[in-house]
Amino acid sequence: MSATDELVRNNDAYTFRYRERNLHAAPRRRVAVLACMDARIDVHRVLGLAEGDAHVIRNAGGQATDDAIRSLAISQRRMGTTEIVLMHHTDCGMAHFTEAELNEEVRAATGREPPFRWGAVTSVEADLRETIARVRSSPFIPNRDQVRGFVLDLESGRLRELVV
Amino acid sequence: MSATDELVRNNDAYTFRYRERNLHAAPRRRVAVLACMDARIDVHRVLGLAEGDAHVIRNAGGQATDDAIRSLAISQRRMGTTEIVLMHHTDCGMAHFTEAELNEEVRAATGREPPFRWGAVTSVEADLRETIARVRSSPFIPNRDQVRGFVLDLESGRLRELVV
Repeated sequence: MSATDELVRNNDAYTFRYRERNLHAAPRRRVAVLACMDARIDVHRVLGLAEGDAHVIRNAGGQATDDAIRSLAISQRRMGTTEIVLMHHTDCGMAHFTEAELNEEVRAATGREPPFRWGAVTSVEADLRETIARVRSSPFIPNRDQVRGFVLDLESGRLRELVV
Repeated sequence: MSATDELVRNNDAYTFRYRERNLHAAPRRRVAVLACMDARIDVHRVLGLAEGDAHVIRNAGGQATDDAIRSLAISQRRMGTTEIVLMHHTDCGMAHFTEAELNEEVRAATGREPPFRWGAVTSVEADLRETIARVRSSPFIPNRDQVRGFVLDLESGRLRELVV
């Protein structure tokens, strides 16, 4: 049995009924979260979110790529969110390789160059600082006065705010 | 108190300790999930995922944008995942606007054109079909024989596989 089959079987036991809870697409707490895809992070548990509360956007590194900006802009312009939580974390895999290494590996395997930067980072804090700056300076995101950045400590499960 | 302050306060009560659980960055189930950011979806609950099990990538629509391909490629090339679960859902907000509408709104508000398509869709199923095709044809993702797509029914909480 594949892992995917196991997850589908898990879903058989999932009985949450959205309509009974009267949940709407517009996030109740009017927040969008942008976090890293790291397997150890369950964003809902870390932030105490329930279904219906917040948009959750995740990618490798929790970075403010064009695609993350797209999602944040849609969240605000179509779904009425006004606050943004940016979540990086300790021990992030994005600090364990360089652009050149991964480009070389991919070139050797495929003969091609990707149409994106991989987003390798040297410092999670510095990358979070850049992520905050990119979101705060994006003209496509209308509400930018409540954009806050946090590092999740994977030792303790606690958030530490990066005040910039 | 802002919504963000409430989430930070929720985190004060979060006591999960990653090290005690002996969790590693490499996903235990060797799966990466790409899902929509919709506020009603708690991916961990829908799929019965625990911390450490899977990478979770999310954006507006759960689409296979370049950034999602980047995250999936890093997941497989650096963290050893081999299966991909693509999750779209019923009642998706991406079907409630057009590219032209949102472009016009943004142009009026900012005087600028975004460097991305918004990803408006006319049919969630058709978009999932395209998402599956894009992932399966990406040379940057090495393992593409276990790429499966599902529509989450927000009435029932159940997944329906789109077999293509």
